[in-house]
Amino acid sequence: MESAVNGSWQAFADWCATIRDLTSVANLLGWDRETALRPAGADERARQAGLVSALIHRELTRPGAGECLERLRGADLPPPRARAVELAVRDRDRALRLPEDVVRGLTEARSRSVSAWLAARPANDYAAFREPFREVVARSREVAGLLSDGGEPYDALLHDYEPGATAAALEPLFTDLRARLAPIVAERAGRPAHRLPGPRLEGAPLLELTRVVARRIGYDTDRGSLAFTSHPFTSTLGIDDVRFSTRPSARDPLEAVLIAMHEAGHALYEQGLPREHTGTPVHDAPSLGAHESQSRFWENHVGRTPEFWRGIMPALRDAVGPAADGLTPDDAVRAANAVAPSLIRVDADEATYNLHIALRFDLELRLFRGLVDVDDLPEAWNEQMAELIGVRPGTDADGVMQDVHWPEGLFGYFPTYTLGSVYAAQLAEAADATLGGLRERIARGDFPAVLEFMRDRVHRHGSLLPTAQLMERATGVPLSADALVRHLHAGASLA
Amino acid sequence: MESAVNGSWQAFADWCATIRDLTSVANLLGWDRETALRPAGADERARQAGLVSALIHRELTRPGAGECLERLRGADLPPPRARAVELAVRDRDRALRLPEDVVRGLTEARSRSVSAWLAARPANDYAAFREPFREVVARSREVAGLLSDGGEPYDALLHDYEPGATAAALEPLFTDLRARLAPIVAERAGRPAHRLPGPRLEGAPLLELTRVVARRIGYDTDRGSLAFTSHPFTSTLGIDDVRFSTRPSARDPLEAVLIAMHEAGHALYEQGLPREHTGTPVHDAPSLGAHESQSRFWENHVGRTPEFWRGIMPALRDAVGPAADGLTPDDAVRAANAVAPSLIRVDADEATYNLHIALRFDLELRLFRGLVDVDDLPEAWNEQMAELIGVRPGTDADGVMQDVHWPEGLFGYFPTYTLGSVYAAQLAEAADATLGGLRERIARGDFPAVLEFMRDRVHRHGSLLPTAQLMERATGVPLSADALVRHLHAGASLA
Repeated sequence: MESAVNGSWQAFADWCATIRDLTSVANLLGWDRETALRPAGADERARQAGLVSALIHRELTRPGAGECLERLRGADLPPPRARAVELAVRDRDRALRLPEDVVRGLTEARSRSVSAWLAARPANDYAAFREPFREVVARSREVAGLLSDGGEPYDALLHDYEPGATAAALEPLFTDLRARLAPIVAERAGRPAHRLPGPRLEGAPLLELTRVVARRIGYDTDRGSLAFTSHPFTSTLGIDDVRFSTRPSARDPLEAVLIAMHEAGHALYEQGLPREHTGTPVHDAPSLGAHESQSRFWENHVGRTPEFWRGIMPALRDAVGPAADGLTPDDAVRAANAVAPSLIRVDADEATYNLHIALRFDLELRLFRGLVDVDDLPEAWNEQMAELIGVRPGTDADGVMQDVHWPEGLFGYFPTYTLGSVYAAQLAEAADATLGGLRERIARGDFPAVLEFMRDRVHRHGSLLPTAQLMERATGVPLSADALVRHLHAGASLA
Repeated sequence: MESAVNGSWQAFADWCATIRDLTSVANLLGWDRETALRPAGADERARQAGLVSALIHRELTRPGAGECLERLRGADLPPPRARAVELAVRDRDRALRLPEDVVRGLTEARSRSVSAWLAARPANDYAAFREPFREVVARSREVAGLLSDGGEPYDALLHDYEPGATAAALEPLFTDLRARLAPIVAERAGRPAHRLPGPRLEGAPLLELTRVVARRIGYDTDRGSLAFTSHPFTSTLGIDDVRFSTRPSARDPLEAVLIAMHEAGHALYEQGLPREHTGTPVHDAPSLGAHESQSRFWENHVGRTPEFWRGIMPALRDAVGPAADGLTPDDAVRAANAVAPSLIRVDADEATYNLHIALRFDLELRLFRGLVDVDDLPEAWNEQMAELIGVRPGTDADGVMQDVHWPEGLFGYFPTYTLGSVYAAQLAEAADATLGGLRERIARGDFPAVLEFMRDRVHRHGSLLPTAQLMERATGVPLSADALVRHLHAGASLA
């Protein structure tokens, strides 16, 4: 009996490792597309990526796997193994519920919608985008229906990015944030924001600065590599191959450093996942919100502090040379913490940013509850921008069409950004208490202690716990806007 | 009936496209390993590559494919389709003959042998390399036995790289080459070879020069990209994604230009394959010898001419700036055509190079005919070097252990280099006759006409014909050393 379970476990581990390796291959196809592929190769690459996705789906839904999983669910496994099986059953169940033609239909609709958006956004032509977008919404609703058991359809979409999260749990959080962040932003309306005068960074010095910043906080450059892409991202191509990118051009050293901190935060998490669970679903973050807690912790709670900027100056001068002349830590910190109402999410300061997310969450929820129609989305957007942030987009290009997420059908994704911010603030307070002062550690350059705190409280647990439980254990408090609001008030005083 | 054949053809085309896409993915895994992967990620990458190889093997040997192929073989297909089916049957037959454990055994033996070689070569310790190498030879012999139907085992190995070639057909060619090249080399023994004094090129200027040279002869930079790797190579990641690399450092502009010409020659071939046969086995070169004919044509018959060097100078100066000061086309041409006996193949001039290959061909043949043992290989090597090239290696590192091919178990591969040189010379004479003077075209910068000749005679035929037939039609003459010998005599007069 014992050995039958061992045999099943080995078969399970092999099956998981195959899925994991195929996922790494899929990630490489994506990484290379962004870093090296010429546009002429895009169609073939899409077909190759589609093939690998289909192989992953085929492996996940393979008939034999079901029996093996059932045998392991009935066995008395140690908790990490039981959790691995539970996560695998969850992923397999999801894959089994979605017929291949539904998946293909959604994928194709997304592709058409992104193409329409790419053309419609520069032309500010929502009408040209509307019908392909309507189809993405309709097909996403179909998928949500297949995945949810009669519950809130939006919860099924959330699940892809933030397992365990529900609209019911998120609504009070966002209501609270709207009420408490809007005044911080409103107070600043009309005042000029601090901004660094440059210099713009590119090429080798920018890459070197990115590398120096990432290494400083503990990113292992022997287990990954760096590149330029138009949208910075982090990708795991293997347990010892965690890469991240930065933009080919940064408008000033502050932007360069914050992008590096953000992506290195993601990469540190991946590099810190529990090696003993390599290949199983436990060797992963439990959600995007958990992942974003790490990028935002390093970006916002370390990278925007005076202590960090005073420490980084010599390395910054080494990396970029005379480009750093005239830049003082005080200038950088004031610019890093400036608050100003803005139309565009990706350009927004921390406070305004979360109002942008609140708006998207509200509209997504209304869209999938049938309370707002695709036709009325631009006006609903503009009204809420005016109400929440105090600015009204002059065009849909600067309004409802500003992000690629909706054209891509990534509904339920936006809330994970704010969950990341909230968890990051809670983790920062916990680190501050545990380490005898987070900013004192930063001032001493004791990044190993800060990283060790994250390794211990977050990284090494992989997906052993759902995000909410993991974070409550790590921070000692349940999910709440309090820490983030305190952090933003403190930041405003630095600007 | 007609529609049943159409249905079978569609199923066949889909099957081929899947194999092709998986092959592209395998090529990407290899390309990225050489261009971006850190050493820490090598083991995982090997596992990912092994998984993709297994998927290709599984697809090739899939039971249902056999019936479809049989149906198509019995149908009255147009010749290109019939050829595609014939090639697919050939590849599938090969895969079916090799049990998975034999393939895995060889792969693992190769990996151990390469590891042993990596350690043994710097230490000049053949004894430490001998046993892992002996295993590779034994397992390769096993594979050859499974693939050959009682014929010469070496022919089965040749087939992997040069389908249709046989030891019996190659022996007279190499005998002829040995007799006619050795005197050219011997005549130069003791005389100093012309060599450029530099400057060494690296980084952006080297990459820019490579790009300029490749574009000049017709490489489409919109359908591929360039990178640095320690061993230059060309890889096809998609019909519109043909990449090649150069070394991170070139000892002088001549080396930089010749590497660019060589790899761009491979890449031009890939970019010129017949689009109408995309995805089927016809959309491929018929052999490595055919492929090498293109790289060597551009490198040796264009890139070593005075006309080419006079034309490239302005672009060279633009790309590398003052690094080109003092370099004259005459210097470059003399150095490009210098002949001198040498121990190391990759550093050898064109004449000596083919003697190096003749030596390896002879030893491989004797090894697989059981006429020489792994124990006696170093001495057999040294004796033949002394006899053929007139130099005797002081160490096995500079002798039998100099190349990675044998440690990797690539037996039957070396002869394709010389086949490439021979075909290149025959093609150059045909181009000369057809275009009213090849060197006149080069002098006028009329590379489009030269490329069009190759497109018309070679590229656009893909694998419709076996290499020997393709080349005989393209050049009007059967395989012979004559053209190559004439070319080398002419080159010697330029040095």
